[in-house]
Amino acid sequence: MNVHQPLTINAERLLETIFELGKTGRNEQGELIRLAGSEADKAGRDLVLQWLREANLEVEIDQIGNIYGIWRDRAIHPNENPLLIGSHIDTVINAGIYDGSYGVLAGLEIIKTLQETDVTPWRPIAIVAFTNEEGVRYAPDMMGSLVTVGGLSIEQALETVGIDETIFGEELEKIGYAGERKPGFLQPHAYIELHIEQGPILEKTDQTIGAVENLQGISWQKLTIEGVANHAGTTPMNMRQDAGQVASRIMSFVYDHVKQNSSTVVTVGSIEFEPNLINVIPARATFTVDLRDPNEDILREAEESLGEFVQAIAKRENVTITSEKLARFEPVNFSEEIVQAIEDAANNRQLKNRRMTSGAGHDAQMMARICPTAMIFVPSKDGISHNPKEFTPEEDLVAGANVLLDVVHQFVQK
Amino acid sequence: MNVHQPLTINAERLLETIFELGKTGRNEQGELIRLAGSEADKAGRDLVLQWLREANLEVEIDQIGNIYGIWRDRAIHPNENPLLIGSHIDTVINAGIYDGSYGVLAGLEIIKTLQETDVTPWRPIAIVAFTNEEGVRYAPDMMGSLVTVGGLSIEQALETVGIDETIFGEELEKIGYAGERKPGFLQPHAYIELHIEQGPILEKTDQTIGAVENLQGISWQKLTIEGVANHAGTTPMNMRQDAGQVASRIMSFVYDHVKQNSSTVVTVGSIEFEPNLINVIPARATFTVDLRDPNEDILREAEESLGEFVQAIAKRENVTITSEKLARFEPVNFSEEIVQAIEDAANNRQLKNRRMTSGAGHDAQMMARICPTAMIFVPSKDGISHNPKEFTPEEDLVAGANVLLDVVHQFVQK
Repeated sequence: MNVHQPLTINAERLLETIFELGKTGRNEQGELIRLAGSEADKAGRDLVLQWLREANLEVEIDQIGNIYGIWRDRAIHPNENPLLIGSHIDTVINAGIYDGSYGVLAGLEIIKTLQETDVTPWRPIAIVAFTNEEGVRYAPDMMGSLVTVGGLSIEQALETVGIDETIFGEELEKIGYAGERKPGFLQPHAYIELHIEQGPILEKTDQTIGAVENLQGISWQKLTIEGVANHAGTTPMNMRQDAGQVASRIMSFVYDHVKQNSSTVVTVGSIEFEPNLINVIPARATFTVDLRDPNEDILREAEESLGEFVQAIAKRENVTITSEKLARFEPVNFSEEIVQAIEDAANNRQLKNRRMTSGAGHDAQMMARICPTAMIFVPSKDGISHNPKEFTPEEDLVAGANVLLDVVHQFVQK
Repeated sequence: MNVHQPLTINAERLLETIFELGKTGRNEQGELIRLAGSEADKAGRDLVLQWLREANLEVEIDQIGNIYGIWRDRAIHPNENPLLIGSHIDTVINAGIYDGSYGVLAGLEIIKTLQETDVTPWRPIAIVAFTNEEGVRYAPDMMGSLVTVGGLSIEQALETVGIDETIFGEELEKIGYAGERKPGFLQPHAYIELHIEQGPILEKTDQTIGAVENLQGISWQKLTIEGVANHAGTTPMNMRQDAGQVASRIMSFVYDHVKQNSSTVVTVGSIEFEPNLINVIPARATFTVDLRDPNEDILREAEESLGEFVQAIAKRENVTITSEKLARFEPVNFSEEIVQAIEDAANNRQLKNRRMTSGAGHDAQMMARICPTAMIFVPSKDGISHNPKEFTPEEDLVAGANVLLDVVHQFVQK
């Protein structure tokens, strides 16, 4: 290998592909909706496929529709496991253009950049666009990477019935992306995903690069409090079994409790009272608790404290409380070696950076089960994503891609 | 006047009229639904009217449909203002048989009892069944008594459009109860209303008679908190503008605050979050606050404390909070003289009793504007009313009527 000057991606070319891909899959109102397996998804896939071929990459599509582009021909050891870069190109309904696409297209741009140099990678480099990361039309989300790592069988995945009653396998077939390769056919040497933050931290702390060292564990539960409906005027406070009051006490408790660890976040996003009338004491209150922390011990401790409080208040207020677990994922720790490389690369380029936690789910959390993995974040304006207002300044998009380039460059040397 | 032994009502006859009236106005499923102005209401009215005539009372019906039965012929001063006893016979949907009817029929029973003695009342005694106390079909509730005291014009009341799009005046005409008399034609000397408690206090404290000395003031408001919707995973707690969290803090505050006065009750009966999704920080939370106290100063202080807390937390949590006043009624104080008479009568009959507050609205609160007024409560099993399970033991119904008899007896001596 022989590098005379610091490599840098072609910023204009990267941005152009992002904007071009962002034009595909829009409805008549101009909204971007590339749901997995749809004609809109096909339009995006077709464009990416065309670009992969134009870059002379080996294109492979597996049975779940994951698209790979492998740059093998200049590798010193073409049969070694490739270094994999990627993300997804499916979107939510009325999406922005950066979520997912940025990571796939930055991968492509990095391969193109390296192709234009005399770099001879020790191992192949591949890019991947995982199928159905968003999970809007077909659950679960991160389906393509989950199947890849063996967390869900291909048969089960293809039988998934969508919110529109379609069957995923049939739709994938219809758009021509039910490939031949077995999911997991490609064993990556490592996986690196570049993504917009989808949160406010980098912007608010005026930093450009997030070296993502872990991904939060998630605990979702639904609490149902059964009290007794009674007249709001004639029932003294000490004779009430007020499900609504108990709900507010539990909420306040959990908001207070998570203050113990700045890493923990909690959200009560949905709530319902019955009968939900101004002058009737709620007989029933149902609400969800979304607890997240990158540390499994802290997450478990928060769950346990909540459980103890719930038991105590149920007894004290003479109500029945049941808890239904809706989802539970342990935190994912990324590869320290790659995270360190990201940090070093950002520092070398004098880009303000920080280690951070991913608060959202990503394909990287699946890939971490089978290879060293990490993520790079760039700022999201106002923390907004899954929305047409999703925005990352061009210089940040370019900076993130250059950091990724440096890390890739380093990791393909052996 | 000449009484040789303590008077007592004919228990069997009272209960029979309550059960008989309770059979009218039922639908095919057997549910009791005597909504104001309906054919079911007519059935109930017809029966009461028949009984008033059988008791040789002067029957009067006013323009809002209030039914009066006046016992004048034996009064020493037949043209003096009558002592008025009453309540209402309209019901909610799927009602119990006691709410309202008990007070009207106890009045009738008391007149019958006195007719069978040689009591010569100083002034006439009248009973009244007010129109549309429940307000289910036509708002506002307590319409008949409100019109009687001049709080609502008869024209406006008759133009009221119901939940079934009917016009009240037309329906009243149709069932033959749009009378000739001007509402308020009868100026009562005093008004006494016997009613089931519709709350748990008498039953839980093992008492038979409530001498109702006041009626709670009511303050209804709707609070709307505007925060910012954000990702539940990627937004650190200190960067949130979480409308849901603020809602729970306000709720907990107000529940804590009302503990200062055992007389105050507060209910958050209805709540709504937007977008109401498990993993999105609520952008908006809307909930109602129903505050009640029999003391206007305490009620106002509770409103003010809530207002101050709302202002402070809005600033601290960087959200916008607006409050909409939905209803506000000052407390009503009843006549100390009548309340004392109720208490004395209960004591004389060795009935366990207490002074208490009415937590629900009643025609008595309107009548208190034009004459000395008070109420007598008897226990409601489990505090339940507005429900087929509404129940008061027969001995309590009889006890309440006998206390009313004693008070009436005392008050018609001059």
